[in-house]
Amino acid sequence: MKTFSKETYIERRNQLKLKVGSGVLLFLGNEESSSNFKDNWYPFRQDSSFLYFFGLDMPGLAAIIDIDQDQEIIFGDNLTTVEVIWQGAHPPLSELAEAVGIKINQPINELSKFLDKAANQQIHFLPPYRPENTQKLSEWLHFPVSEIPGRASVDFIKSIVALRSIKTEEEITEINKAVNISVRMHKRSMKEAKPGMKEYQLLGLVNGEALALGGHLSFAPIITIDGQILHNHNYSNTLTTGKMLLGDFGAESAMRYAGDITRTFPVGPEFSPTQKEIYQIVFNAYQAAVAALKPGIRFKEVHLLACRKLAEGLKDLGLMKGNLDDAVERGAHALFFQCGLGHMMGLDVHDMEDLGEEYVGYTDELKKSKQFGLKSLRLGKELEKGYVVTIEPGIYFIPQLIDQWQAENLHSEYINYDKLAEYRGFGGIRVEDAYVITESGSKLLGDPLEIEIADVERIRGK
Amino acid sequence: MKTFSKETYIERRNQLKLKVGSGVLLFLGNEESSSNFKDNWYPFRQDSSFLYFFGLDMPGLAAIIDIDQDQEIIFGDNLTTVEVIWQGAHPPLSELAEAVGIKINQPINELSKFLDKAANQQIHFLPPYRPENTQKLSEWLHFPVSEIPGRASVDFIKSIVALRSIKTEEEITEINKAVNISVRMHKRSMKEAKPGMKEYQLLGLVNGEALALGGHLSFAPIITIDGQILHNHNYSNTLTTGKMLLGDFGAESAMRYAGDITRTFPVGPEFSPTQKEIYQIVFNAYQAAVAALKPGIRFKEVHLLACRKLAEGLKDLGLMKGNLDDAVERGAHALFFQCGLGHMMGLDVHDMEDLGEEYVGYTDELKKSKQFGLKSLRLGKELEKGYVVTIEPGIYFIPQLIDQWQAENLHSEYINYDKLAEYRGFGGIRVEDAYVITESGSKLLGDPLEIEIADVERIRGK
Repeated sequence: MKTFSKETYIERRNQLKLKVGSGVLLFLGNEESSSNFKDNWYPFRQDSSFLYFFGLDMPGLAAIIDIDQDQEIIFGDNLTTVEVIWQGAHPPLSELAEAVGIKINQPINELSKFLDKAANQQIHFLPPYRPENTQKLSEWLHFPVSEIPGRASVDFIKSIVALRSIKTEEEITEINKAVNISVRMHKRSMKEAKPGMKEYQLLGLVNGEALALGGHLSFAPIITIDGQILHNHNYSNTLTTGKMLLGDFGAESAMRYAGDITRTFPVGPEFSPTQKEIYQIVFNAYQAAVAALKPGIRFKEVHLLACRKLAEGLKDLGLMKGNLDDAVERGAHALFFQCGLGHMMGLDVHDMEDLGEEYVGYTDELKKSKQFGLKSLRLGKELEKGYVVTIEPGIYFIPQLIDQWQAENLHSEYINYDKLAEYRGFGGIRVEDAYVITESGSKLLGDPLEIEIADVERIRGK
Repeated sequence: MKTFSKETYIERRNQLKLKVGSGVLLFLGNEESSSNFKDNWYPFRQDSSFLYFFGLDMPGLAAIIDIDQDQEIIFGDNLTTVEVIWQGAHPPLSELAEAVGIKINQPINELSKFLDKAANQQIHFLPPYRPENTQKLSEWLHFPVSEIPGRASVDFIKSIVALRSIKTEEEITEINKAVNISVRMHKRSMKEAKPGMKEYQLLGLVNGEALALGGHLSFAPIITIDGQILHNHNYSNTLTTGKMLLGDFGAESAMRYAGDITRTFPVGPEFSPTQKEIYQIVFNAYQAAVAALKPGIRFKEVHLLACRKLAEGLKDLGLMKGNLDDAVERGAHALFFQCGLGHMMGLDVHDMEDLGEEYVGYTDELKKSKQFGLKSLRLGKELEKGYVVTIEPGIYFIPQLIDQWQAENLHSEYINYDKLAEYRGFGGIRVEDAYVITESGSKLLGDPLEIEIADVERIRGK
């Protein structure tokens, strides 16, 4: 288990204590997750906030920071003699805790007693996303399960978001590792994909590559010739010449920082002229968005800038028409780009998504829009130095959505439905990289991966 | 989603109805499982009994068989228009249900109403192994969460065990597919492992191979040069000449039947003389156990036969001594072989482990032993034609266990602790294959994979 220095965790916790100010901060680590029977476990994934403040990547832990008493405790159990025989020896919890600057550790069953004693203090906890943790909070804090989500501490959430949003140099180093594993995965997929292969063969290739480089998948890969299906986790199609392969996947580094990259490439050696046209529009939007990244700009503005670029390209092709300022303001472009331009990335691929988009991506002043398209934008607020964001514009021709809009004659002043019929079976294109916001702009994370048409075709062996 | 024929599922359910006799049978399918935030899901794994009786490999389903009213219903929701846009079109639930012989489907939120109406019937349910399903049962059946496990229906469990234990020809065909993917995974590992590689590189290789062949992992692989650590999911060691690599892993077929194979091979091109001696003892036990497999024999007897063979070999080496009948009866051999000879395998790698070992592996007449070693034997009862079992003897030198026994002078009449000191750092060896019980004996599942010393060394390039 690799951790940062003790001082890093102590400093993070000190900052958190200052921000929240008072009360008891309760952190639940994750447990093993069962798949088809109790002891058949999915790969363990620790909670990211637990990792951020305590660094210990193992199941069965919890921790408290009692701000009022200035006390930090890790709760967990050492291996029993029997467990040592079956699992081998591990360092004792006291030693692990010491390595992240915690001097007190107690058995896990002491935690509920601690909380009972702290009943007259404010107990801050985070919104749970695993049912067993909801259940534990219900038992320990004596609230019904249904009340737990609503009782999560907004102060605690906002304080963590403030800290985790700004990535330090050592975090950027880790994210670069994760992105570089992701780059290697994509290189293999771009080099080895061939007509006749199944999508799941590429899944095996890239998942194997992540593990072989000491990483893990950061999320369930999208590897599809149906790029217009945005949440596609089916891998059963056969790659055929003429189609494009959309691959959206990435790895976590050993320390659990995430990478997330998307490329779309031709199954054959080259894009068709129509594919090239759409790809270039997407790439132009990508470039415009990247060029706009800097501290102080709202990410929502960057998103809308990319939407405008997409709309311009689509107008040039005759798919959109009319006043593009109005079209983008009214969301007409969202027929082609239904989702957000990007999201924060860090210890989670959608960083801190468990803490709530309204706190991670928006502010009291800037609320999320309810407009189709914009309502899927996870990040809207002003960028700051140290933010890590993905830039992932795309154009997707979704037959069901086209039919629905056309039936309602929606935005027909901006959309040329007749011309659109020619693109019905086109599929979808997306490109994506991650950037860190710098003093004056942004910087690509990880090694560059082929993205321009000529480069993609070169790696495909044209 | 591949299923058996409609008739297969109808027949299975009819047999189940006959066995249980009366009441309402409640089946909970599985949900998506969250890793580090709600929508970041582990790969979906359906509940195996749900698969066995209803065949539908997708989240969000439940089913009831009302034996009293002779009614079968699948509960689940069709995709909303918005979901179709994001996930693509799926066949409606009515069509999916029809394909497995179910004529009625209802929205998932009708299920609690159904159960409330059935309150005066006996509602049979299985012991849940996922916390969200425990929670649902608590809500729907109005019992506290803590009471749910104890209220699972033993009649329901025993009836399912009786059916799922006997594998049909079409199931054997599926298991063969799973085993053959597992064989391919092992071939790659045996061919490509090299000194200097990390264990996780082999993990990537074999996991990638499983996916690329259209399978999934059937459990978290053990890939280790520390074979004596029985539950080892650490993959950080470097392969070094002189060490052996123990690989215990397998795949699920697309229809979710499991494979499970273990091989131990030298990291260099050949075993050392000492490694050969221990390997041969393990292989002799394997062969003796396989030769004993037939309907009517208790698997516990086969286990003890293998233990006896291990003890004989260990005595020849001077590690054990004295009367071996007594030694095995008293469990002295368990210092070297701490676990069971094998387990049932089917839709789960440890088949039906969620239903309880006392029902799957034992009977009212034959209870599980509490003796160290035997208490880890998952299967003890008489074998029947159609059972699928693994045979996986091993010899493990576990320093912590040796120290503990020696300190207590345990079984010193059967164990030569002085000689044993020479083997302290040896590691562990296990071999494992799966067999189906036939009319008169047993048959290896899947294609043969190198297992004898000379064959293993040949594939390693000696």
